[in-house]
Amino acid sequence: MCEDCGCGDPELVSVDVHEHLLAGNNRLAEHLREHFVQAGVLAINLMGSPGAGKTAVLERTASAFAEKYRLGAVSGDLATDRDGERLRRAGILAKTITTGSACHLDAKLVHDALHEVPWRELDLFFIENVGNLVCPAIYDLGQAANVVALSVTEGEDKPLKYPVIFERADLVLLTKIDLLPHLDVDMNALRDAVRRVMKAPAIIAVSAKTGEGMGEWLAWLEARRP
Amino acid sequence: MCEDCGCGDPELVSVDVHEHLLAGNNRLAEHLREHFVQAGVLAINLMGSPGAGKTAVLERTASAFAEKYRLGAVSGDLATDRDGERLRRAGILAKTITTGSACHLDAKLVHDALHEVPWRELDLFFIENVGNLVCPAIYDLGQAANVVALSVTEGEDKPLKYPVIFERADLVLLTKIDLLPHLDVDMNALRDAVRRVMKAPAIIAVSAKTGEGMGEWLAWLEARRP
Repeated sequence: MCEDCGCGDPELVSVDVHEHLLAGNNRLAEHLREHFVQAGVLAINLMGSPGAGKTAVLERTASAFAEKYRLGAVSGDLATDRDGERLRRAGILAKTITTGSACHLDAKLVHDALHEVPWRELDLFFIENVGNLVCPAIYDLGQAANVVALSVTEGEDKPLKYPVIFERADLVLLTKIDLLPHLDVDMNALRDAVRRVMKAPAIIAVSAKTGEGMGEWLAWLEARRP
Repeated sequence: MCEDCGCGDPELVSVDVHEHLLAGNNRLAEHLREHFVQAGVLAINLMGSPGAGKTAVLERTASAFAEKYRLGAVSGDLATDRDGERLRRAGILAKTITTGSACHLDAKLVHDALHEVPWRELDLFFIENVGNLVCPAIYDLGQAANVVALSVTEGEDKPLKYPVIFERADLVLLTKIDLLPHLDVDMNALRDAVRRVMKAPAIIAVSAKTGEGMGEWLAWLEARRP
C-alpha cells in the first residue's frame, strides 16, 4: 500500500508464545483426561459458532437422559450466566465460566471450574465452549471427544473455510435442520464439505426443536461411555 | 478438582504480549486510516459470526451500487478463496486474505493485501473480517466504521454474551430477517439486547435474500462517505 511512505512496522512481529502456552495447556489437559477416565466420566468438548444451538442440544439431551444418567457441564461465555442458567433449568449440574474477552476455554479454566461441579459423580460431562469456530480448536481440555455443532443456517461452505476445528472433530452435529425448508442450503454439499475436512467423517443431523435426529446423537454418546 | 495431586501448572500464566502487539497494530491502523481519508475512501470493517451473512450483504450492496460507486474489499478466511470469488462475481474488486489458523484480521494483513487492490480508486472499501464474534473486535484496521452482522438465527442473547464486539460497533445489521416467521426469536428482545450493549445504538434489520431493509443500509453507507 505505502511504497511511498515506509510505514511497515517492524514491531508487529508474530510472537510464538502460543507454543509455550499450548505445551502447558496440554499437560494439564492430559491430567484432566486421566481423572475423567478414572472416574468413568465421559467428557465432551462441544464447540461451534455463536448461535449454533449448542445449549439447545444439551437441554434436549438432558431431558432425554434425565432418568438414566447424571449430567454436568461447564459453559464458556464472555459475559452473562445465561447458558449456565438454561442448563441448570434443564437439570444439568452446570457452572458458567465467564471468560471476559477470551475467545476459548483452556484446560486451566475448566480445571478451576470443576471445583464447583461434582464431576466425579457424573456419567456425562459437557464442556460447552465459547461460541467460536476458530480458537477453541487448538486447546485440549481433557475431553474424550470433540463435537462441533454447525447450524445449517450457516451455509454449506463453513467446513472448508474453517477447516482446523473440523479436522479435529470426532463428530459434527448439523443443527437446526427444522429450518431446512426455508433455506437455500444444499445438504449434500454441506455433508460433502464436512467429509472433505474431517479425518474420520461422522455426521449426525439434528433439530433440538423437533427432536429429529436426537436419538442418533444420544446413541452416539452412549456408545462412547467408559 | 485436584486438591489431592497438586496438578496446578505454574507455567500456564497469562502472558500479556497482546499489549505490545496491539500498540503496533494500532499505529499501523492509524496510518491506514489517514490514507483512506486522504483518498476519499470509506473503509468499513464488517464483522460477525461464521454464516452471519456478511458476504451476502456485500453482494447485494454491490448490485445496488454498481452504477454509482466503485467498490473494493478484502475478505478474511482461514482457508479457501470462496468469499473473494463471490465478491468478485458481484463486481467488487476483492482480494482474499487467507489467515491459516488466525482468528481475525490485523492491520498488517490488510495493509499487505492492499498492494493487490486499487484502493485509491475506490469509493467504498469493505474489510470482511474472519467469521468470529470475539477476536476481531479488538484489532483496529483503519476503518471509518465498525459494522457487526448478527443473524437473527443466532438468538436474541448474543449481544449480551459477546459484548466487546457490540460495544465497539457503529452499526449492527440484523441479517436474514426473511427467516423470522420460522424462528422463535423475539425481535424486541434482540433489539433491546443490542441497545443495552452498544454505546450509541444503531440497528438496521435486513434480508439480503428479499432486499428488505437494504435501502436503509445503503443510505447509512452513503451518509458516511467522506
